[in-house]
Amino acid sequence: MAKVNEEGPIRWFTAALRVRYQETDQMGVVYHSNYLQWMEIGRTEMIRAMGYSYSEIEAAGLLLPVVDLDIQYKQPARYDDEIVVFTSITAFSPLRIQYRYEVRRMSKLDPAPSIEVQWKDGGDLPGELLVTGSTRHVWVNREWKPARLDKSLPELYAALRNSLD
Amino acid sequence: MAKVNEEGPIRWFTAALRVRYQETDQMGVVYHSNYLQWMEIGRTEMIRAMGYSYSEIEAAGLLLPVVDLDIQYKQPARYDDEIVVFTSITAFSPLRIQYRYEVRRMSKLDPAPSIEVQWKDGGDLPGELLVTGSTRHVWVNREWKPARLDKSLPELYAALRNSLD
Amino acid sequence: MAKVNEEGPIRWFTAALRVRYQETDQMGVVYHSNYLQWMEIGRTEMIRAMGYSYSEIEAAGLLLPVVDLDIQYKQPARYDDEIVVFTSITAFSPLRIQYRYEVRRMSKLDPAPSIEVQWKDGGDLPGELLVTGSTRHVWVNREWKPARLDKSLPELYAALRNSLD
Amino acid sequence: MAKVNEEGPIRWFTAALRVRYQETDQMGVVYHSNYLQWMEIGRTEMIRAMGYSYSEIEAAGLLLPVVDLDIQYKQPARYDDEIVVFTSITAFSPLRIQYRYEVRRMSKLDPAPSIEVQWKDGGDLPGELLVTGSTRHVWVNREWKPARLDKSLPELYAALRNSLD
Repeated sequence: MAKVNEEGPIRWFTAALRVRYQETDQMGVVYHSNYLQWMEIGRTEMIRAMGYSYSEIEAAGLLLPVVDLDIQYKQPARYDDEIVVFTSITAFSPLRIQYRYEVRRMSKLDPAPSIEVQWKDGGDLPGELLVTGSTRHVWVNREWKPARLDKSLPELYAALRNSLD
Repeated sequence: MAKVNEEGPIRWFTAALRVRYQETDQMGVVYHSNYLQWMEIGRTEMIRAMGYSYSEIEAAGLLLPVVDLDIQYKQPARYDDEIVVFTSITAFSPLRIQYRYEVRRMSKLDPAPSIEVQWKDGGDLPGELLVTGSTRHVWVNREWKPARLDKSLPELYAALRNSLD
Repeated sequence: MAKVNEEGPIRWFTAALRVRYQETDQMGVVYHSNYLQWMEIGRTEMIRAMGYSYSEIEAAGLLLPVVDLDIQYKQPARYDDEIVVFTSITAFSPLRIQYRYEVRRMSKLDPAPSIEVQWKDGGDLPGELLVTGSTRHVWVNREWKPARLDKSLPELYAALRNSLD
Repeated sequence: MAKVNEEGPIRWFTAALRVRYQETDQMGVVYHSNYLQWMEIGRTEMIRAMGYSYSEIEAAGLLLPVVDLDIQYKQPARYDDEIVVFTSITAFSPLRIQYRYEVRRMSKLDPAPSIEVQWKDGGDLPGELLVTGSTRHVWVNREWKPARLDKSLPELYAALRNSLD
């Protein structure tokens, strides 16, 4: 799989959301499975920023299920916090795609991040770091058989490839 | 729509579950939307007790979406509580079905209720009453057009009708 | 309880959201309990538009649990739909509060509604109507005993009262 | 941290559940974040099988948040499937605890597993393997500061230690 250019800056895409009451649990913090739904929102908004929508991709007969994932919890999010999910592609092939994420809490002083930001790796993104994670996916067709994105949706394939440079 | 015989005892079907940590919120109680999922479990287990499964019904091309509902919250459920959902059909036709529910907390002293119980209306069911509610549904086909259960699945129609007597 | 002035226009507050993938079910539409979480977002944003936050209210020792609710489902929401929740107070006292809601799907042609809109009853709000509902709540303290809002948080009480005029 | 004896059989604890309709998404399978809630049920039932309850532990002022986790998805679970979560402790100290899980689908032919099973590593557990994963946790007090389980709840500490042998 093509890896990102690890020398240059990283292309992050952003998605902003507010913590819902239902997402808290009796510890008074966000229940740990909800971060996976936020990472899905990060992927959705990244694809939208590239000019596509995940529902069009599904309408074209392609699905992108998660194969495996890992999450590291640093600080808990709380009700009504303003959250930004930073999403970046870390590896990519016609059959597979790999993302990484930073979930961050914005304060009143942090400027709202734009949809796409370039950031040197190691440099801190805006806001307080709460959770990091990564997910790996494969493209499949409606029968859950592996599908090649470069043949099914060549324009999206090219757009995703470009996001690595 | 045929109404239940309001003179005789009510046929209740039961489904037991334990409150999950994820179902609590920062008030320390079960978030109010989760009771709707428990009522769905009540409907599922009622149909199973009649010898059918809701997934077979969907495989036959029928769906049973909710048209409207109401809920009354008396006491909150809490993490790890032992809950029994009591489900009963209150009205029924080839096109529509109407349920009512009592969500109750069992204590160590309450005997585990059997799958089906007959109870005189007004008499208290076992356990502490937490929530009551009712839902109304229509049968539709895969295109979301109204469907007649007596024509699509006549045996299930007869079984549901019998549960009213 | 004070009722809204039923002659004049209704003061609606709005909250915009996008349907999440996790909110769909295998019928291909939004699972019916999720609308309750969207109505909670409607209440949260209404209070924020008045200059308060629900988390400050909780920090002051007041909770606002749901006592009962009803929902009517007209059309299903689908993944990635742009939704606006319209929220209005319909009755109000120092001890209780009652809301009604319209959940609507926006199309590309609909202008984004502002945070607060005045609308004559009977006149259609923007977007396609999906779901209507209402919820009733009581103010309680941390021990879940009834609390008077006019004594605990007199400024919020006055702001909510004003929203009825 | 003490590791499990990697030579002998593994002590697995089991928790059975049925897939809920709300847990499916429009792909027709269980949404991937729900497995985390099932793993939590696995931990809860394991502690109950040892004679404790997680709610008593919280009442004693101890919380056990997740620090990090990983999941591998092999096959999707579907609505109404009968699932068994197998849970095992893989490492343990007074401050930390580490679990691993196998989420498996039972068929009508599989015997219902008992609460606790001993299984030689490498040997297949009953049912079809759907998902594997592991979670790491730290004990904290109500202020989210690290807490020593051997001092706070020495009997539970001893019971958990024993489960490694």
